[in-house]
Amino acid sequence: MRNFTFHNPTKIIFGKGTIGALKREIPEGKKIMVVYGGGSIKHNGTYEEIMSALEGREVHEFSGVEPNPTYETLMQCVEQVKAKGCDFLIAAGGGSVIDGTKFIAAAALFDDDPWKIIQTFGSCVKQALPFASVLTLPATGSEMNSGSVITRAATKAKLPFNSSKVFPVFSVLDPLKTYTLPPRQVANGIVDAFVHISEQYLTQPAQASVQDRFAEGLLQTLIEEGPLALKDPEHYEVRANIMWCATMALNGLIGAGVPQDWSTHMIGHELTALYGLDHAVTLAIVLPSNLTLRKPSKLEKLAQFGRRVWNIKSGNDEHQATESIRLTREFFESLGVKTRLSDYNIGQEGIEKVVAQLKSHQMIKLGENGEVDLEMSRQILELCL
Amino acid sequence: MRNFTFHNPTKIIFGKGTIGALKREIPEGKKIMVVYGGGSIKHNGTYEEIMSALEGREVHEFSGVEPNPTYETLMQCVEQVKAKGCDFLIAAGGGSVIDGTKFIAAAALFDDDPWKIIQTFGSCVKQALPFASVLTLPATGSEMNSGSVITRAATKAKLPFNSSKVFPVFSVLDPLKTYTLPPRQVANGIVDAFVHISEQYLTQPAQASVQDRFAEGLLQTLIEEGPLALKDPEHYEVRANIMWCATMALNGLIGAGVPQDWSTHMIGHELTALYGLDHAVTLAIVLPSNLTLRKPSKLEKLAQFGRRVWNIKSGNDEHQATESIRLTREFFESLGVKTRLSDYNIGQEGIEKVVAQLKSHQMIKLGENGEVDLEMSRQILELCL
Repeated sequence: MRNFTFHNPTKIIFGKGTIGALKREIPEGKKIMVVYGGGSIKHNGTYEEIMSALEGREVHEFSGVEPNPTYETLMQCVEQVKAKGCDFLIAAGGGSVIDGTKFIAAAALFDDDPWKIIQTFGSCVKQALPFASVLTLPATGSEMNSGSVITRAATKAKLPFNSSKVFPVFSVLDPLKTYTLPPRQVANGIVDAFVHISEQYLTQPAQASVQDRFAEGLLQTLIEEGPLALKDPEHYEVRANIMWCATMALNGLIGAGVPQDWSTHMIGHELTALYGLDHAVTLAIVLPSNLTLRKPSKLEKLAQFGRRVWNIKSGNDEHQATESIRLTREFFESLGVKTRLSDYNIGQEGIEKVVAQLKSHQMIKLGENGEVDLEMSRQILELCL
Repeated sequence: MRNFTFHNPTKIIFGKGTIGALKREIPEGKKIMVVYGGGSIKHNGTYEEIMSALEGREVHEFSGVEPNPTYETLMQCVEQVKAKGCDFLIAAGGGSVIDGTKFIAAAALFDDDPWKIIQTFGSCVKQALPFASVLTLPATGSEMNSGSVITRAATKAKLPFNSSKVFPVFSVLDPLKTYTLPPRQVANGIVDAFVHISEQYLTQPAQASVQDRFAEGLLQTLIEEGPLALKDPEHYEVRANIMWCATMALNGLIGAGVPQDWSTHMIGHELTALYGLDHAVTLAIVLPSNLTLRKPSKLEKLAQFGRRVWNIKSGNDEHQATESIRLTREFFESLGVKTRLSDYNIGQEGIEKVVAQLKSHQMIKLGENGEVDLEMSRQILELCL
């Protein structure tokens, strides 16, 4: 196990009917900005419950944060936050809204050009407005971490930033609010969480037994409960397990003290930025090919993944690794998430564009050991065709 | 899954040679009190590393905190903290020292009779001095939680308290510092962590998949790595895994949203208070009998424990549950921890004393469903003979 620091101060309020906690948790006197997306929170009761909990407070709202939230849109919100003098934000929605609110929280108190927050990957952030999240879509884990991914529409750049200043103060997770999600979003959320875990688990071995077992337990949960969520959308226990699983998948715990990959994400980000594919779709496309190409350096963990998660008992490490990749692809497809570039009419020409974008974003030494250079990214993408 | 709130603000600094972080993490100008036990930290280099990190600071020290820290001793430290005007504490040692420091931190700012902190199980604590821990003995999880157990020597009362004000600000976990632990303390630590997990896992089922899988992963880690730690005390990875496992066993994570038992602990506390048995020894005695007697209400989880943790594939639930209890007892014994009251020359008369103490401490409705009344505690203890 490597040395590590783990610190996650976000308070989680989890369960049925918990949105009312906003009343108790947000200090009196705060000027609140509620940030949300396309309005689904108005259809599933979330908006109403939030406003009811905030009755009597000064509340402003900003809607229209997109999936893959754009710098351009978020800066409009930053202006409003400043204009109204808001000093507490609520992100109501999924990972895009929470990611976007993290940027707004940091940019509202940033004296220089806010794009520098992204350019420095967050390292220049010294302060941020406090904010909470009300999660409606289990997927990204943004509700309990300090990471965010922002897209600049003008240049088709989708880039991550990270800062300890943008942990949510608290997050409310009510599984009831996920009942009305479209199947596509449910499936995407499951794939997203699955790949978050893979990025931290399917690496070179680090003899980190707790982290391995936790990662495997989360993967098993997704494999067991994911299909049930699609089959029976109003099964509370299933929804609750998936919601908590997605949070645990990316709150720093399973990645503490172990190597982390993230090359699937970085390649996937370019596919989203260029072609508008759903984030999870890009991950479902890239992961199996990435693991296949890099099987030699990941063999031990892939075989362990096969034995412990997919219950493959026969064969040698090579066989178990190959099978585990095959079953992973099959799992994504079973959720209705396609896993080939050709499923989205992207061919060799698209690969060249992605590689050019990776180059322009200096994504030239990806993976837990830096082995994924531009040539290897190209090979991975060719396997995705 | 039940509704829950999870909030754990303690920062963990984990790994080789990390004690030097004290220098960085403790704000300048603090008057520091270093609290420790019998002096083992002077033999394994911990004391020296702490003092070196604090060079140039105002540092006081208080030694002599016992295993099962007593109110009487801790109050001496409270007086010194007040007299010197200390405003930051460092607990250097195992769970007893950290538990004791939690009490000191709260009592130093408490205006009324400090015993009330215990009598109200911590609910009257409104503030506490900030403190850090430097852990040398993986076992209790006190380094990342808000619980503490204090003994009043005068009345042989060993009682818990809990307050969100006594989370360590940060804890330093350096596995190297565990190399010199006596085998008895290593074994006790493994048993202690094992039973912490059991108290939160071996209950009525709650359909909490993540919590179950995490608990099972921690138990598997202890079963696999525990014997190795005794066999090869200087195996870094083994020590690191056990250390992180013990922290995770009781930091609120696996107990969030699920029923919790704790009757084994409450009965065990009385055995320690009356007979001076090591805490872990009392747990190793009580747990197998507790599970055996309450098998009917815990059958489903005990069978799951058997299948997933002990790899028992044959037989029905009853068989798997029985086997899992037998293997648990065997595991404790294999570590050199005896599991019978008779191993410590405690007989029927002792049982009556324990039951009388449970009664006097109102421990009359224990367990996740309150089923463990005094009569059931007596039956459990009789099975322990």
